[in-house]
Amino acid sequence: MTAKRDIHLLDVTLRDGSHSMRHAFTEEQVRAVAKGLDQAGVEYFEVSHGDGLAGSSLQYGLSLVDELKLIEAAKEESKQAKISVLLLPGIGVKEDLQAAMKAGADMVRVATHITEADVAKQHIEFAREQGLKTVGFLMMAHMAPVEKLVEQAKLFESYGAEIVYVTDSAGALLPHEVTERVHALKNSLDCEIGFHGHNNLSLAMANTMAAVDAGATYVDGSLRCLGAGSGNTQTEVMVAVFDRLGIKTGVELYPVMDVANETVAKFMPRPQEITGSSLIMGYSGVYSSFLLFTQEAAKKFNVDERDILVELGRMKAVGGQEDLIFQVASEISKKQNR
Amino acid sequence: MTAKRDIHLLDVTLRDGSHSMRHAFTEEQVRAVAKGLDQAGVEYFEVSHGDGLAGSSLQYGLSLVDELKLIEAAKEESKQAKISVLLLPGIGVKEDLQAAMKAGADMVRVATHITEADVAKQHIEFAREQGLKTVGFLMMAHMAPVEKLVEQAKLFESYGAEIVYVTDSAGALLPHEVTERVHALKNSLDCEIGFHGHNNLSLAMANTMAAVDAGATYVDGSLRCLGAGSGNTQTEVMVAVFDRLGIKTGVELYPVMDVANETVAKFMPRPQEITGSSLIMGYSGVYSSFLLFTQEAAKKFNVDERDILVELGRMKAVGGQEDLIFQVASEISKKQNR
Repeated sequence: MTAKRDIHLLDVTLRDGSHSMRHAFTEEQVRAVAKGLDQAGVEYFEVSHGDGLAGSSLQYGLSLVDELKLIEAAKEESKQAKISVLLLPGIGVKEDLQAAMKAGADMVRVATHITEADVAKQHIEFAREQGLKTVGFLMMAHMAPVEKLVEQAKLFESYGAEIVYVTDSAGALLPHEVTERVHALKNSLDCEIGFHGHNNLSLAMANTMAAVDAGATYVDGSLRCLGAGSGNTQTEVMVAVFDRLGIKTGVELYPVMDVANETVAKFMPRPQEITGSSLIMGYSGVYSSFLLFTQEAAKKFNVDERDILVELGRMKAVGGQEDLIFQVASEISKKQNR
Repeated sequence: MTAKRDIHLLDVTLRDGSHSMRHAFTEEQVRAVAKGLDQAGVEYFEVSHGDGLAGSSLQYGLSLVDELKLIEAAKEESKQAKISVLLLPGIGVKEDLQAAMKAGADMVRVATHITEADVAKQHIEFAREQGLKTVGFLMMAHMAPVEKLVEQAKLFESYGAEIVYVTDSAGALLPHEVTERVHALKNSLDCEIGFHGHNNLSLAMANTMAAVDAGATYVDGSLRCLGAGSGNTQTEVMVAVFDRLGIKTGVELYPVMDVANETVAKFMPRPQEITGSSLIMGYSGVYSSFLLFTQEAAKKFNVDERDILVELGRMKAVGGQEDLIFQVASEISKKQNR
């Protein structure tokens, strides 16, 4: 028997939450969350290192437990739920995806920066050949104009993606901006549209509602918001809100609340609040990987880290441009001492 | 020099936050928050027991420090900010308001249940006579149909209220419901409209934006969300979001972030997360005062407290009907054992 659903809910606790857990999920934790999500009727959930398959490294943080082992464990606990993995081309390769499939993955989300969909071509084609449910995941979606987003999403679709996601990695989008983006994709693509939100501006839930209202049919959440930055749209709250709106998710409220509050809340290292750093990331639209460098540069040049982040956001700096941070800090310092 | 503002921001950290602090604000904490809000350019902030003037009692919780002393301290720290107090007729009386004025209050918000505006007549008239900025505060605004809200708001206006608030005490309203309510008031009243949100459904910020979009000019927030239930709209995040929207609050972002993160975050007893209890309160639309009784009744009758809260919400139970909780629990238990 399949639950009746108007939209498809995908829980990312066991992937985006990996950031907040410093990649230290235990097999026991993964089994408990997987079992709870499955029993509550959650249709998809994602298990991978926070930075995707093979993310475990000195650069991105070493996983405590091999993600393949965690995928296997999650698969064993799932009677109906399907398991997604995240793949960032350049970090993960085809062999990682094959191993993940063997461990139990049913779906892959191939993720690229908003302007770099073309690097995902071979991965998406390969995933489709393997029979995986295949998704294109356009990260930092706030950083490009709508036309660019549409162009990149069309590339994903042309490679074979069955769903294309608008991914608000920095929690920087406002609801009307989500509406505009999802509408544009609905008008230009035939595939389904997804939305992945972060709560840096306290708008993850509102943005998710705006996305669904504009036609998105896949939405991401995490239990107790466990995820990067200020965390994600809160899965169990989303179930309650869509129930109030009369939109069927196929997920039962009390069981999904139970796994959030009886399981996740008990092992999460700290609550997912909107702190100074996460707010300024959403406000300025820069990604979390800049934060540590920015704090270092702020100290070195005796300037406010927020001024650096806001300037980086204005410049639309992207990952890999970390050198720029010190340059910006130096410029701000010079201006202030003039 | 007065800051240019499109909307007026009122911070309730030192009043609604009293609930989360179990009414144990110290004078030192109040001075630090007041000074920080004042320096950041916040126009109004509220200082009172969580349940309003004279709320300090066994029933509502005893204040650690007399609220009049806290009002005086806050006033001393304020160069430009005006100080509001909350008054619930029946808890506070005219003499309490006079004492608060003497201590430094510039504004009073007279609060009643959504259907009971008439009990506020004498308090509002008295406040106007005394020259206070006078506000009507309609609590649990989700519990009455829009026509009833308009009727009650008109009563407030006829008594002399200069601003009438839609107060979403249980964090139960959805954005389109806020829009509908504020629009209806704008179309029927001449006075200004305010909105006070709670975050139980992760929609406080979205609801506040909806209110402003519909014409509200006064909006409440609290630093780090410190307040009842899941807390309030987060003041410093609201400043960032309205700045992004080009709506002037007259508040400077970094200083208001500093008081949130360097002061409030350091003394708040726990983070304002959306937990199981606060979510179900927003979902079912019942007020926080029911929670302890409900937990007791759930235990006694061996039923899920959520089933009781949802049923109470459906019945539109209000404060004072606490006996009903045990009756509902008993009925649910009988049905389940049939």
